[in-house]
Amino acid sequence: MKFELNREFIDQLVELIAQKADAEIIQSISEFHAADIAEIMEELDSEEAQYLFLLLDGELASDVLIEIPENDRKRFLKALPPDVIAHRFIEFMESDDAADVMAELDEDVQDEVLQQMEDKEQAGDIADLLEYDEDTAGGIMATELVAVNENWTVQTCLKEISIQAEDIDEIYYVYVVDDNLVLRGVLSLKKLIMMPTHTPIKSLVTEGAHSVRTDASQEEVAQVMEKYDLVALPVVDQIGRLKGRITIDDVVDIIREEADKDYQMASGISGDVDEGDNVFRRAWTRIPWLFIGMCGGIVGAGVLGSHSSQLTQIPAMAFFIPLIAAMAGNVGVQSSSIIVQSLASGARSFDSIGRKLIKELSVGFSTALLFSILIFLYNFFFTGNMRLTYSVSITLFIVMIFASLFGTVIPLVLNKLKIDPAVATGPFITTTNDILGLIIYMTVAKMFFDVL
Amino acid sequence: MKFELNREFIDQLVELIAQKADAEIIQSISEFHAADIAEIMEELDSEEAQYLFLLLDGELASDVLIEIPENDRKRFLKALPPDVIAHRFIEFMESDDAADVMAELDEDVQDEVLQQMEDKEQAGDIADLLEYDEDTAGGIMATELVAVNENWTVQTCLKEISIQAEDIDEIYYVYVVDDNLVLRGVLSLKKLIMMPTHTPIKSLVTEGAHSVRTDASQEEVAQVMEKYDLVALPVVDQIGRLKGRITIDDVVDIIREEADKDYQMASGISGDVDEGDNVFRRAWTRIPWLFIGMCGGIVGAGVLGSHSSQLTQIPAMAFFIPLIAAMAGNVGVQSSSIIVQSLASGARSFDSIGRKLIKELSVGFSTALLFSILIFLYNFFFTGNMRLTYSVSITLFIVMIFASLFGTVIPLVLNKLKIDPAVATGPFITTTNDILGLIIYMTVAKMFFDVL
Repeated sequence: MKFELNREFIDQLVELIAQKADAEIIQSISEFHAADIAEIMEELDSEEAQYLFLLLDGELASDVLIEIPENDRKRFLKALPPDVIAHRFIEFMESDDAADVMAELDEDVQDEVLQQMEDKEQAGDIADLLEYDEDTAGGIMATELVAVNENWTVQTCLKEISIQAEDIDEIYYVYVVDDNLVLRGVLSLKKLIMMPTHTPIKSLVTEGAHSVRTDASQEEVAQVMEKYDLVALPVVDQIGRLKGRITIDDVVDIIREEADKDYQMASGISGDVDEGDNVFRRAWTRIPWLFIGMCGGIVGAGVLGSHSSQLTQIPAMAFFIPLIAAMAGNVGVQSSSIIVQSLASGARSFDSIGRKLIKELSVGFSTALLFSILIFLYNFFFTGNMRLTYSVSITLFIVMIFASLFGTVIPLVLNKLKIDPAVATGPFITTTNDILGLIIYMTVAKMFFDVL
Repeated sequence: MKFELNREFIDQLVELIAQKADAEIIQSISEFHAADIAEIMEELDSEEAQYLFLLLDGELASDVLIEIPENDRKRFLKALPPDVIAHRFIEFMESDDAADVMAELDEDVQDEVLQQMEDKEQAGDIADLLEYDEDTAGGIMATELVAVNENWTVQTCLKEISIQAEDIDEIYYVYVVDDNLVLRGVLSLKKLIMMPTHTPIKSLVTEGAHSVRTDASQEEVAQVMEKYDLVALPVVDQIGRLKGRITIDDVVDIIREEADKDYQMASGISGDVDEGDNVFRRAWTRIPWLFIGMCGGIVGAGVLGSHSSQLTQIPAMAFFIPLIAAMAGNVGVQSSSIIVQSLASGARSFDSIGRKLIKELSVGFSTALLFSILIFLYNFFFTGNMRLTYSVSITLFIVMIFASLFGTVIPLVLNKLKIDPAVATGPFITTTNDILGLIIYMTVAKMFFDVL
């Protein structure tokens, strides 16, 4: 059942849409999953995509709506009246998806959609979910879950499950609560069906199930589920009452998103970019870092300008400027990325700052020593100017140690200040270290010129 | 039940270990999950960790063994005879974990462990799993699963499940096979328990379940599970026979690993590094890229050396070398990271190469225009040397366009050549673009000197 998007299929579909051959269109996509249809729609132009979308029926249409990119969804929903949004889409969705889609609408439209909904309980759940911050456990969780009372037996439970489970796609765990709806434990469906029907639930529950509070950050949610290999995680309020559950598929998306964000940040791209974005948006995400780079370059020019006597005395000094700058930049990026990653993974942020620094500095020291010897040998044999040879290798040594120091300290400081340390990687650290490298280079050169 | 590692707890534990107070030690960690104990062990020195580990009983000890870092596990198992490895650890593990741990042993030890195992079927499963490449679906999958025949009824199934499910931690889906063990479909446990017991299984199975072949790459596995929000994915052989299943927790680890690898690659760190690694290993992963950077710097020095007349005529030319190099590097990294990411995510690699290039070049062109105007204005007002002003801004324009061209083309070419395009980000692209930038700078300057 492998789905492989290919040009011929798209061309054929475009043809069918042009002919308005509705039956054939529906036939040709009938085997596909919502995620596949969303992918197909991205290959069509927006009118064709809309035409295709309107042919889909209730459940499938709302599944596809969840899968398409946010901008397309917004544009599409903007054209529809609130009652259509409610009856054709929101009512078919699980509460977490419904809340996510609703959050993208204007507030007055939200209110109208909620009022139009026929299932008042569902509308109430969505309204509750909309109250939570979107980056918290409350903002990610769904309210559809199967909860059973700890005083029931297996038999009562199984009966109750088949009632409660009507609305839920999949059940992985059953949540056990007390009379006050406080979470007491978790029961796997497997355990339940393997037990004699008269067994009291209380005796089956393992105490100490993992749970998070509604205000836990999405990073914390991801860390807990990853560490303990959980498929679903219950969410509770301040006094421990069960409010919802988070499933692993949403967490996979969060992990992917966070990783992409850090990667782009390290590459000097701010904000999320994807294939569909236009040239202006793409350029916009890069300009801030390029601007920082340019300002750094201008400062660097200033540094060199104020030390121009060294450059006039030995013009060959200038030749090694790119080398010093590049090495400073590379070392800085290496050090900072290791720190940023260890901060992001969260788990073992237990090492004292002192220990982290010492480790990084030892690495900095050993690589600095190695490369300053290498460049010394190169210059000694190939350029023959001793002042230059000494200046470049001593500079490289100092610069590499400073660069690894900066690369380590800056993310740690930002983290303390509650700023995302990922901003400190990439162009930021490269620029800082470029300037630093030039200052050290010129200062060392001056010292040698004064002495030798 | 929130686990928070703190210094006092570790100090107390170290104290207890020193006193060999076994009962208290076991008591103090009795509430913890295997993943927590592994984390605690990382905070102890290796003898303390070993002491703690030996106090754990069978099931828990093998769970912890799976969670600790590979190097620690190898060191620990090296000291044990094959029969202890078999009876105390491997026999308690699920087949996928057992095969992963076994793969880390020498081949003759593997053979002995397998022979020592009492459950011959389990030993056979592990031996089979060891045949697969570790990066493929076969290498990740576990053989523990519940398979039922399509000709059975719900009742027979439920009975069979309680027999088959003894060895399995969790069941999310039941796999339906025909008489030849060919996968026919998937059934959720929920659906099964909600149906009347005499219902034939055949009528419940949805056709076209997602599956992968044993030789599918781990990236493909991750993509399929992510896209279709699957919790478990069946793995089949060439003729469709059910061989195993992959669960989402293993895929989460793969996604995290891949993201970390790409991030480190972009930061100029080859190979996986984590907090526990020593200074030598840490330095080793950075040296290749630093070496490339240094060679680039030396080539750069050569380029400048062969154009020294321009630098002697206008020494201020040298001041802008860092700016040109930095901008070239930044633009290159930005372009390449976008391409690498879109290649890695796999899903929408449908855009033709031409379209990707045009998009990137448009972004390159617009940012190049913006920044060359900015630097023109800066130099015009603050330096006043017109030859310098023209040279720098024209160079910047050309360099930025070339850098985005290179940043786009190199990863695409590497990808065509089946080389991981991630190697092209970070230091590699920075170094290439540095040199390119200097050549363009010196060439443009020469043209202006000849003309003006």
